[in-house]
Order: sequence, then structure tokens, then C-alpha cells
Amino acid sequence: MHFDFTDIREMPKIQRLNLINSITGIKPGNLIGTKSNDGQSNLAVISSIVHLGSNPALLGFILRPQIDVRRHTYENILSTGVYTINHIHEDFIAQAHYTSAKFPADVSEFKACGLTEEYHNACYAPFVKESPVQIGMKYLESMKIEANNTVMVVGQIEHIHIDEHALSKENYVNLETLKSVGIGGLNSYYRLSKIGEFPYARPHETPDFTNEKK
Amino acid sequence: MHFDFTDIREMPKIQRLNLINSITGIKPGNLIGTKSNDGQSNLAVISSIVHLGSNPALLGFILRPQIDVRRHTYENILSTGVYTINHIHEDFIAQAHYTSAKFPADVSEFKACGLTEEYHNACYAPFVKESPVQIGMKYLESMKIEANNTVMVVGQIEHIHIDEHALSKENYVNLETLKSVGIGGLNSYYRLSKIGEFPYARPHETPDFTNEKK
Repeated sequence: MHFDFTDIREMPKIQRLNLINSITGIKPGNLIGTKSNDGQSNLAVISSIVHLGSNPALLGFILRPQIDVRRHTYENILSTGVYTINHIHEDFIAQAHYTSAKFPADVSEFKACGLTEEYHNACYAPFVKESPVQIGMKYLESMKIEANNTVMVVGQIEHIHIDEHALSKENYVNLETLKSVGIGGLNSYYRLSKIGEFPYARPHETPDFTNEKK
Repeated sequence: MHFDFTDIREMPKIQRLNLINSITGIKPGNLIGTKSNDGQSNLAVISSIVHLGSNPALLGFILRPQIDVRRHTYENILSTGVYTINHIHEDFIAQAHYTSAKFPADVSEFKACGLTEEYHNACYAPFVKESPVQIGMKYLESMKIEANNTVMVVGQIEHIHIDEHALSKENYVNLETLKSVGIGGLNSYYRLSKIGEFPYARPHETPDFTNEKK
């Protein structure tokens, strides 16, 4: 099946949102925790977290500040300078999904969705107690993407809490052991099963794939 | 288990790379296909593709042009203005992984890794014939991330080829049907099994999670 630029542009809006949000493949399932200066906590599901670098350890995520339901999240990050990123475990995918509803600013998604605030390390922003991986972040900068007025929010990792059973001695994280989930498009949640692990790839150690072709 | 900013900074390099590359959760497994102006094709595994917007349909990915093994990819994108994004199917995870080896510029990873170039729609860049989803991209802009000299490459979707069995009538893409894979960290590949699908979330339709708390 083939869609070209014009097919995509003229597609009904909902179908286009569904297709384009899911066409890149699986996305990491996370919740961003924040708290306003007057103490209102906020929690938002996010599937656009991306690795930017390991030293310093930097992560980005994408949002559209004008129309995004995560605008409270962004306001809290700008005003307090901190936020948390928490893996979604397969036991609470429904709770995580409903944090995307447009609750009024004075409703905490933690309470509305049955998740628990947890505080560590003197971080002002709440972690999600039920999450198998909790990351404490310091805000660094926002970069505007000119093509569509989207913003990439860049932050630095300050703290990581993780179940040590999921870490190998080389610090590989096993996502199957953690039961962390992936998100497809806007509404689908996927379990992860590890099917392969390969060494760092070097040309002279590459298997001979040339005979395997059909 | 807890790591703070200093623990991360002082960790041996390989352990830090492993931890920070995998801490965000699952990442989409894709191959980027390009071709130089003098006809040399290139293929590179990439796990940092991120959705930027649906109308226009924009995608980004992250790379570090100075040191990245994907520098040939970036040079080809800048000089030809086009590239392809192709899902990794679970049948060719080893082939996909070894495209990350630093082959010389005159070696095509398609050939070295046993994958097949395919051309559609007068697109100069090669698609991966074995991929269940093929996306033709037009390059738009590169944005420098000041904090670590990384670049986000932004492009527009021009073409999508997808197996129609994996598309619902609302254009939801089923990643389990496609057998597309996710990547954990730098070296782990995961199968995807759909475990939940939820409607668009509205506050007044949110289930009562408040009684489910332990």
C-alpha cells in the first residue's frame, strides 16, 4: 500500500494523526512528573523521549506548547527547572494512558489516575512510585523547530533509580525484566521480549551475510 | 539502585554508554538509506527517529556529525536532499545491527549486510526491499543542540509504503503484525506484542482509578 505527500495531506485528520504518529515504529512509554511553584503536581504520558548524548547525559522530548495537553508540564519545567521521567510498567498502562486527558490545572493526574507521588534526592518534582525506572532531570534549554513550531526540551540526567536485577554488569538495561512498555501511535501499548543481543559491530568481525541472500 | 550525577560522570565510559543509551526505554528500530551523488549507496541503523508533527508530516533523528559512524549518511542527505527510513523486521536484526560497523566509504552496507536496494517513486535514495514499512523523506533542516554539539536532522515524509494488513481502517499501524522491532541501548533487539489499546482520553470518560490504589 502506498501513500504519497498529497494522499497524506488530504487524508481525514484523525486517520492522518493515527498513521503519522505510528509510522516510525515503537516509542518509549514514559510519564513526566512535574510540580508547579504553588505545589500542584502534574503527570503526563510522553512517547517522544530521545537520547541526545551520554557525557553529559542528555535527553530531549518534543512538544507543541501552544496546543499540547502537556502545556502544564512545560510551564512547570520552565518555572521550577526540574522534572522526572518514569518508565510505564505493563501493570499500569491504563492509568498512564489517561494522564493524557485534559484535566483542569488544579487536578493532579497522579490522583485522578491512581498513581503515587514519590520524592527522592531533594528533587522538587515528583517521581512515580510504581515505575521500575525513575530519572531525575534538570532543564537545560528549549529549541524551536522552525518547520512546525514544535519545541524540543533538552535536559540533563541528575539521578537514576533502577531495579538492579535489570542491570547487567556492563550496565545494559533489560527492558523485558523491567516490564517497561512501548507505545505505538497515540493509543497502543506493547510488551517487549528480547530476541537478540549483538557485540559492538566491527567490519572485520561482520558475519558473511552475502551468501544468505535469496 | 541509585546513580547520581557524579556516579554517572565518573562511570567507566562503556558502562556509561550502555546505561544512558538504554535508560529511556525502548527505541524504534530503523535503517536509513541514502546514496551519494556519485552513486554509492549507504545504509545505517538508527534508533533515534522521533515524530515531530503530522501536518505537515515531519520526523527528526539525532546524530553527532563529527564522530558518528553515520557521517556518510549525513553527507549524502545534505548533498542529495533525500533519504529513506525503513523498519527493521525481526528476520533481519543481525544484518541491521552490522550496518553500524565502520565500513570504508566505498563499501555499501546493503551488500556487506545482505540487504537489498529497492527504488520507488523516482526517489534517488534506496529503500530496503526486506522492510515492512518504507518511508521516503525530503530533508528540511538541521538543528544544532548547543549542549553537546549534536544535530537533529528534520525531514518531511513524501512517501509511505506499508503492508496493508497492518493498517486498521482508522489507519492505526499494528507493529506486532508487521514484526517490526524495538532497540534497547546499543545492542539489544526486542519483539513487540500488543497488550492494550485505549480510546482518546477525556476527563469525564476516565475510569475510576482512585479505588484501585493499594
